[in-house]
Amino acid sequence: MTNRFQNAAILGAGLLGGSLGMALRRTGVAGRVAVWSPSAATREACASASWCGGTHARPAEACAEADLVVLCGPVDRIPPLLDEISPACRTGCLVTDVGSTKEAICRAGAAAFPPGHPADFVGSHPMAGSEKSGLAFAREDLFAGRVCIITPVKETSAEATDRAVSLWTDLGMKVVRSDPGEHDRIVARISHLPHLAAAALSSLLAGGAPEEKSCAGPGLRDTTRVAAGDPRLWTAIFRQNETAVREALDALQAELDAFRAGLDQPGDEAVRRFLEKACRFRRSLDEGDAPS
Amino acid sequence: MTNRFQNAAILGAGLLGGSLGMALRRTGVAGRVAVWSPSAATREACASASWCGGTHARPAEACAEADLVVLCGPVDRIPPLLDEISPACRTGCLVTDVGSTKEAICRAGAAAFPPGHPADFVGSHPMAGSEKSGLAFAREDLFAGRVCIITPVKETSAEATDRAVSLWTDLGMKVVRSDPGEHDRIVARISHLPHLAAAALSSLLAGGAPEEKSCAGPGLRDTTRVAAGDPRLWTAIFRQNETAVREALDALQAELDAFRAGLDQPGDEAVRRFLEKACRFRRSLDEGDAPS
Repeated sequence: MTNRFQNAAILGAGLLGGSLGMALRRTGVAGRVAVWSPSAATREACASASWCGGTHARPAEACAEADLVVLCGPVDRIPPLLDEISPACRTGCLVTDVGSTKEAICRAGAAAFPPGHPADFVGSHPMAGSEKSGLAFAREDLFAGRVCIITPVKETSAEATDRAVSLWTDLGMKVVRSDPGEHDRIVARISHLPHLAAAALSSLLAGGAPEEKSCAGPGLRDTTRVAAGDPRLWTAIFRQNETAVREALDALQAELDAFRAGLDQPGDEAVRRFLEKACRFRRSLDEGDAPS
Repeated sequence: MTNRFQNAAILGAGLLGGSLGMALRRTGVAGRVAVWSPSAATREACASASWCGGTHARPAEACAEADLVVLCGPVDRIPPLLDEISPACRTGCLVTDVGSTKEAICRAGAAAFPPGHPADFVGSHPMAGSEKSGLAFAREDLFAGRVCIITPVKETSAEATDRAVSLWTDLGMKVVRSDPGEHDRIVARISHLPHLAAAALSSLLAGGAPEEKSCAGPGLRDTTRVAAGDPRLWTAIFRQNETAVREALDALQAELDAFRAGLDQPGDEAVRRFLEKACRFRRSLDEGDAPS
């Protein structure tokens, strides 16, 4: 297969960046993958990995020859990095990212790569990952079968959008388009709020008796799994998507209040209706064509 | 191996009752397993299962010859069933249950099997199960490797307690003792509250846009998995453990308020500390000797 991209540059080589490098080479989507990481240890680890064609100590150096640049750092590092690499990106280069928030990042992308800039920016959010972080957990199949939300804005050319769609589709992802603000409201509810609920449960139990922990079963483990995610990365996500997260949190508290109001009523009807609605939704998640 | 029990009677043959019947025969803990179910269809299904030695249309009939009786129905059905079977249980019979709540059940057990009754009641809560319910999902290894909390009260004889410990230990469980009230407060926090959080998230998303569902990833699926559990069973659990559930719900809402207060503060410090505490607890669940 002809490589869709000749020279890919990955900026940030944690779980997502490392997995992306592996996947780009494994699928042949990129002919060569270069890496920048702020960490010398990570650069060294990449340099000895078979998927990595070279490492750079400065982000702009990694981008100079690239026709694909993917920013894979924490969401609060992506906007300044877009500014920094903008002058280095050459004609025809597609610049994208894997950040879990999109409004702030796409605003920075539009400013750093305005119409007339030789390169194009399109925001992406591959909905893949894990509570593990770091290159050591990277795996080439992290993206396959998952959803990727891309968020072109009105200035984005149809060609740049198509190239972003092809990139993720070639890696086995199901691509969905959204605008950055809508994306942020959606993921606040389906990703950031579940993380917050898991963290609140875990924070509560952190102050509990040792018997609680020794009795913990698989239900608690699954419900709280995501709370093991990197606090630094998640703090940046919550802060950057603060408005939508606050709305989602209000809505969750309203649901908890509704459950309590159901308990206040005599009889079981109100509680059962609440649980039935929840049960129907959850069971529906396992039906149809949603990725498993 | 000599069977620890000659004739076991299982009252209620759903996921737990069916799995218990299989496990009792597979391990040889019981020489014979008889079943009562209120459902004729379930009795028929059991009658043709290799682990089942016979079915009965009335609970007391199933208990008449038994030296082990395990009540496996919904938690609100167990207290009246204890009353119903009490006159039928013979000398030396160990009566126990698998209910997720213990205070109301053990109160009913102490009333139905007072000191001087020829049979003994000891409350049990094997922390095993699944969001699936019904005999069709039963499996002989459901209990192995899990925790079982038993809740003897001051009237319980040491011998009866020892027999209950042996029963669950022989099925591969790690047995923990607690008193019924303490049990209910613990499981309110580690099981009922996670279920409630998962249900609240699911109820919230049930009213969302279709895009939310199509973008759902593994994090959401895991966080909400338990919400697919049977609403009828869970309504009875929440109602029967209402006091402790309300306390746990208050504590969860206080955690969510604390997170929001962290967002209100300038800088990332408060949010990050909240997430770090949660992350440390959740990671600690995967360490040590806790069952996986």
